[in-house]
Amino acid sequence: MARNTQVPADHNAPAITRILGEFVAQHPSRGWSDAVDHEAHRTFLNWLGCAVGAAKHEAADAAVAAVSELQPAPQATIAGRSERVDMASAALVNGITSHTFDFDDTHLKTIIHPAGPVASALLALAEHKGMGGREVTDALVLGIDVACRLGNLVYPEHYDRGWHITGTTGMLGAAAGCARLLKLDAQQTQMALGIAASQPIGLREQFGTMTKPFHPGAAARAGLMSALLAAKGFTASPRALEAPRGWAQVVSTKCAWNEATDELGQRFEISFNSYKPFACGIVIHPSIDACTQLRAQGVKPEQVERIELKVHSLVLELTGKKEPADGLQGKFSVYHGCAAGLVFGRATEHEYADEIVNRPDMVALRRKVVATVDDRIDEASADVTAVLADGRRVHVFVEHAIGSLQRPMSDADLEAKFSGLSEPVLGAARTRQLIEACWGLGRAADLRALAALCRP
Amino acid sequence: MARNTQVPADHNAPAITRILGEFVAQHPSRGWSDAVDHEAHRTFLNWLGCAVGAAKHEAADAAVAAVSELQPAPQATIAGRSERVDMASAALVNGITSHTFDFDDTHLKTIIHPAGPVASALLALAEHKGMGGREVTDALVLGIDVACRLGNLVYPEHYDRGWHITGTTGMLGAAAGCARLLKLDAQQTQMALGIAASQPIGLREQFGTMTKPFHPGAAARAGLMSALLAAKGFTASPRALEAPRGWAQVVSTKCAWNEATDELGQRFEISFNSYKPFACGIVIHPSIDACTQLRAQGVKPEQVERIELKVHSLVLELTGKKEPADGLQGKFSVYHGCAAGLVFGRATEHEYADEIVNRPDMVALRRKVVATVDDRIDEASADVTAVLADGRRVHVFVEHAIGSLQRPMSDADLEAKFSGLSEPVLGAARTRQLIEACWGLGRAADLRALAALCRP
Repeated sequence: MARNTQVPADHNAPAITRILGEFVAQHPSRGWSDAVDHEAHRTFLNWLGCAVGAAKHEAADAAVAAVSELQPAPQATIAGRSERVDMASAALVNGITSHTFDFDDTHLKTIIHPAGPVASALLALAEHKGMGGREVTDALVLGIDVACRLGNLVYPEHYDRGWHITGTTGMLGAAAGCARLLKLDAQQTQMALGIAASQPIGLREQFGTMTKPFHPGAAARAGLMSALLAAKGFTASPRALEAPRGWAQVVSTKCAWNEATDELGQRFEISFNSYKPFACGIVIHPSIDACTQLRAQGVKPEQVERIELKVHSLVLELTGKKEPADGLQGKFSVYHGCAAGLVFGRATEHEYADEIVNRPDMVALRRKVVATVDDRIDEASADVTAVLADGRRVHVFVEHAIGSLQRPMSDADLEAKFSGLSEPVLGAARTRQLIEACWGLGRAADLRALAALCRP
Repeated sequence: MARNTQVPADHNAPAITRILGEFVAQHPSRGWSDAVDHEAHRTFLNWLGCAVGAAKHEAADAAVAAVSELQPAPQATIAGRSERVDMASAALVNGITSHTFDFDDTHLKTIIHPAGPVASALLALAEHKGMGGREVTDALVLGIDVACRLGNLVYPEHYDRGWHITGTTGMLGAAAGCARLLKLDAQQTQMALGIAASQPIGLREQFGTMTKPFHPGAAARAGLMSALLAAKGFTASPRALEAPRGWAQVVSTKCAWNEATDELGQRFEISFNSYKPFACGIVIHPSIDACTQLRAQGVKPEQVERIELKVHSLVLELTGKKEPADGLQGKFSVYHGCAAGLVFGRATEHEYADEIVNRPDMVALRRKVVATVDDRIDEASADVTAVLADGRRVHVFVEHAIGSLQRPMSDADLEAKFSGLSEPVLGAARTRQLIEACWGLGRAADLRALAALCRP
């Protein structure tokens, strides 16, 4: 049958399924720098905080109610909840919760959120099997590498077409990670990737609904199941990723094959992972950052007469809501963001609660923000001046916001973010233990101890 | 971000998600002709035979081993096996087994195999909930209608692009059917379709591997879970099917919206479902059919000196293997097909066993088949003459093979096919009971009795 003529088939694609299968199976444990390995811990910590933080969200309630219908034997933990479910369902739910607040990690080259699919699958599998933290850490690096490399291969055409790239590459990352954890050989790993290739999950049309976070959850589950199937001898096309009717050519008009293999085993995509400090769109981050710096310099809200904000036009276009009525609208208000930065020194999910957005002092302060457009200022920057009652002017220019690749969040920043998410669910003491357990992931003898800490 | 310019977005698509949601929720029970309802029984019977027949295939072994890792509570039956698993896993495995032999039903307009995704999900859900056969029958008709209408909407461009359309529409059919069975309201059903829309499963590159039958299985599981999620309040885009970044426009360059709604509630796509009498490619069917007719007319293999076969060139191009070495090669040999028709009067999976293909009398007989190309004969036809030792010539011309829409298999034919698949697994007596239970589906008080009959 004739193929769509607008999309000519490529019959000469390299055997990247095989190559990646070999790579994931055979690359030595910890075959990368300390910085890469440390990044894995950061990724894990950040991801888990997101999962714990959203554990009582209505999307989590609905998903748990659905999987509880399956009446499974308890195998794996849903982070932040007391229920234990089968590991596939745990992967699903943790993948959902970790993306619910749009607060998880981002591979900026592709806007993939890689930990949701990969870590969710790995924790569930490792807990059930009583696996060690070293193996989990290895699998996390490799799984994320596969997902993000394949993302580079198809981005941006694939995303532009309408696919939610986190879920359409995530099942491949989760399959790769779980295959590694199960110690599958190269050929079995190739099969795991092949089985996963048939299950891309996610349409951008779903943004704004619970099905958006469902995508990484379902990708985690699909990847885990693909690895289990491959371990049991289930077969798939060995060219499932690159064949003319395989994953890449079916889901994308761009297929930059070299992205799968360039510097493989040398450059790790997890190195380019980033973490959001603020629970809102990235475009407001420089403005919030600037206001937290004003606060750190001693500027107090009650002293402020006016905040002069100069930003790129895109900022006001996307987040110019002057009078947000609730928390969700607050996420689209650079005015509220500035007020939160100045009052709280942060803008986590808590600062986007309805009652915070509507608090009289917050309303009053955000009305003092005077925003003007200046397109000489980059989208990633912000120029902020606090004009105080005594006439003083305190100026801050943020070139790159905290959380960017240029100014990454520190470990302490990440701990603070984690605490903000976890403490309301697990309490301060347990949260502290869990942070330590995350930092010690690579040394953990058995993931069950860490998983147990996730249950209230 | 710029959309792929080769695929212009359609911002004016009708609200088919809502329309289908309402339709599935509100169309009256049994709101169709007796013929439609009877077709549902045929569909169910045919599907179940396929599932039972492949229950011991290695693909089934592998899938069961994988889902047994989940250690679920027993909720639902895997047809033809004694294990009971959670209902999502049962939907998966029954979807896999029912497509393993490529012997299941076909909606010829789209080459969708609709029962695999839809019936697999329904039986699992209905068994667990102890639902009645009337409800299941309704859900089967409606679920298949949704899957096949949406298939019509995107076929053939979607299939040409490389998608395995059974799994990329099947999750929508399964979601619709399960939503119906769960008595979801229109809005919830719309959400179930929306959640399912994010999970198209299947690449044509997988053909020839276990992942091909995995597609309907995974679609069954995805649809079932989508309905369970929707029942618990999980949300999706209400325009997940038709929006510019929704299912149809992302997976297809053809979007014939009218196919979703034309004669909705009047024309049922299950009416156009067909069933394969022979376990091989459709192009050999007329030749096999002709030879079974020769046998019915009293021609015995030992009398035959020569079989003169005239067929369209495509037949020999696709299935011209003169000396097949095993059962799989036998499926690409019109010569073996003719021999099987004459010796056994059928060509089920049994007649494609290695030992049958290599039996000396079969080898001898297939060598007596002299095939010639005649392109005046349609692909769907065959002209066969048996030349006997006594000089007699017995001629049969098959215009449309048995199993085509023009000459559908009779109920007795379907029973015989079912028996051939089921008896080696469940025995003759149980097979007879199961056939009766299938015919009585619409009257069954509780699906658990039928499910119990599926366990050896």
